Amino acid sequence: MSHTVPHVVVVGAGFGGLQAVRAMDTLPVRITLIDRHNYHLFQPLLYQVATAGLAAEDIAYPVRKILRQQRNADFYMTEVTGINTKTRFVQTVTGDMSYDYLILAVGGKTNFFGMESVAQHSVGLKTLQDAINARNQILRMFELAAKELDIAQRRAMLTFVIVGGGPTGVESAGALSELIRLVLKKDYPHMDFRDVRILLLEGCDRLLAGMPEPLSEVTAHILMKKKVEVRFGSLVPDFNGETISLKSGEKIAARTLIWAAGIQAEAVVNTLGVKQAWLGRVVVNSTLQLAEYPDIFVIGDAAEVEGQPLPMIAPVAIQQAAVVADNIKRSLEGEKLQPFVYKDVGALATIGRNAAVARWHRWQFHGFFAWILWLFIHLIRIVGFRNRLLVLMNWAWDYWFYDRAVRLIIPK
Amino acid sequence: MSHTVPHVVVVGAGFGGLQAVRAMDTLPVRITLIDRHNYHLFQPLLYQVATAGLAAEDIAYPVRKILRQQRNADFYMTEVTGINTKTRFVQTVTGDMSYDYLILAVGGKTNFFGMESVAQHSVGLKTLQDAINARNQILRMFELAAKELDIAQRRAMLTFVIVGGGPTGVESAGALSELIRLVLKKDYPHMDFRDVRILLLEGCDRLLAGMPEPLSEVTAHILMKKKVEVRFGSLVPDFNGETISLKSGEKIAARTLIWAAGIQAEAVVNTLGVKQAWLGRVVVNSTLQLAEYPDIFVIGDAAEVEGQPLPMIAPVAIQQAAVVADNIKRSLEGEKLQPFVYKDVGALATIGRNAAVARWHRWQFHGFFAWILWLFIHLIRIVGFRNRLLVLMNWAWDYWFYDRAVRLIIPK
Repeated sequence: MSHTVPHVVVVGAGFGGLQAVRAMDTLPVRITLIDRHNYHLFQPLLYQVATAGLAAEDIAYPVRKILRQQRNADFYMTEVTGINTKTRFVQTVTGDMSYDYLILAVGGKTNFFGMESVAQHSVGLKTLQDAINARNQILRMFELAAKELDIAQRRAMLTFVIVGGGPTGVESAGALSELIRLVLKKDYPHMDFRDVRILLLEGCDRLLAGMPEPLSEVTAHILMKKKVEVRFGSLVPDFNGETISLKSGEKIAARTLIWAAGIQAEAVVNTLGVKQAWLGRVVVNSTLQLAEYPDIFVIGDAAEVEGQPLPMIAPVAIQQAAVVADNIKRSLEGEKLQPFVYKDVGALATIGRNAAVARWHRWQFHGFFAWILWLFIHLIRIVGFRNRLLVLMNWAWDYWFYDRAVRLIIPK
Repeated sequence: MSHTVPHVVVVGAGFGGLQAVRAMDTLPVRITLIDRHNYHLFQPLLYQVATAGLAAEDIAYPVRKILRQQRNADFYMTEVTGINTKTRFVQTVTGDMSYDYLILAVGGKTNFFGMESVAQHSVGLKTLQDAINARNQILRMFELAAKELDIAQRRAMLTFVIVGGGPTGVESAGALSELIRLVLKKDYPHMDFRDVRILLLEGCDRLLAGMPEPLSEVTAHILMKKKVEVRFGSLVPDFNGETISLKSGEKIAARTLIWAAGIQAEAVVNTLGVKQAWLGRVVVNSTLQLAEYPDIFVIGDAAEVEGQPLPMIAPVAIQQAAVVADNIKRSLEGEKLQPFVYKDVGALATIGRNAAVARWHRWQFHGFFAWILWLFIHLIRIVGFRNRLLVLMNWAWDYWFYDRAVRLIIPK
């Protein structure tokens, strides 16, 4: 591999970064993919790790295995701390690395909107560690409650509050309800399950804001049938680990708060010193470049295309990755870069067994067929045949046997 | 369930404790099984988690799922801190619990023989956390070495020292060699694998002391063919995280020390105030009772039957569990208790693909058939059909594709 070819540094091995690297397979460039983890994480199924349906290992795939087939790409596991746009260096905790082109696909992180007490006591659902922590927390509360004689304490242990009515919150609430009602109920035969409460708190007036309104209503209805208490207009400014204080003044005694109410761009983009939009997203032009530094592209959750504020979801990142790879090819060949135009094919969310809601182009539907579509779409998107097989096996097992096999408390 | 029936408390959900609970299925007693974890761990395969062959979740099984079918048993996840033999109370971090009969099946923990520096810087192989830590450590060293320019530093990162030539050390060394030579070699195409060293240090003059001597020699020979440097008469008194100091005065620059050189009884048995043998094991009489407190039985790694010092292996604990369950039945019925006599059916250790050594009654053999026997015996001993299926699938996958799919660094 010659070192005189241009060096493309891609930061982030999520959906966007990985797709960008793969799409540059045949370009005459040298690619370095940087991530702080050595695996690609299939984030849409994190909530199933949190609710004991899948093992953490099932939704993570070694980056080096993916890059084995690609001769122009290398991997570097490290943490990026900043970008020096003048000297064109990526700064990391283990040293600097120069670039000719830089693709920032750093994604997002949990956003607690500055609420320290909530950040400290709640569990997020953005990293593998988050999901394992959430699983440990949920299962530990049942073990504690099983031996707790004080009824108020026991009820607080068995009250699970999920904040955020987007896909993560909705899917977590549905999966948690099924974990408790279908599986844990058999594990704790002496426990009174009327003490269990699951609340889903949403700040606005409907769930799944990205879906057509009738599907939002279906979703709320299905969740309520699963004994999830869905509340609208609920804002959570404070949680001390024992009491959740709502903005309305109401207090809820609960030990577990799962925070699915906000994402923001990873902090490293703040070092660029360029214009940022809502949630810290970097503003890029229609060709996905920074206006000031055309050698820097930003895609996915960390980017906002000027005039096109798009949702922070995988399809956006993946489509942008293809455009960036093509634009680097065009740049190398001295051609004019192409603009990014998002093709919105739809949205999906599952609420539990046989239940999902789907928007597909202009059609909307829910129920069993939407659920099958959800299963299929997620399975084919998982990287690696082995992981796909394991996920399918776990799903089939849990479906037939009403089981969640991974209900293990594995603390640090 | 009446509370006037005798209460049997079993501490430890390992092979012995679990078997004891199951064997008391039909006894007119109320059983409480206590463990600090909510899962039964299949310890013999921990080294495969450490070497990225199996997911942590594959070898752990929820205790409550096992006990679902047993109406006279309940589970209590807590940590036992002591035993009050006078008042007949088990003391735990979450309160006391009285017993009529007590079965201590607390097992063993890693024994660093008082060497603080080794305890601080090395990784053990006794708990699920140990195995995950070992996996993280091994894979992280490769990631660091891939970018390290200083050759001495790089070699220290790629030097893996395993201390202890028993089954755990031997199996770890073989599996680590195959992980590196067959899998990681493809992940790091630019790395010079002549920098990699695996050392297996044994204090005595042969490996697998529980095996006939010819098999020990075969084992050493197979490991050396796998490029494991096997050294005898090597004692490790000090490791500062960068240099391993041998008793001979030799220094080895290495970042990774896997400690498989010693086990001791769990510290809780020290609170009994009774006679203890080598490695802290409690001395029990032939009926597995404490001489002073006949209502207390001790089995497995934490016990030494007077006059029968047996190895700390699962078959001993399992056989003792059956005897204890029967002795409690006899005690309830006013009959004379039976003595425990160990039936040694053999021993098995695997050294890698197609390679194992086996002693079966008076026969000894090695090679492919021993390996198939090892696979079969381990598969049938794993609790739960699903885990058995997952382990089998992982083994088949790794065998056919020369892969170790779980090479993920998942730090705390």
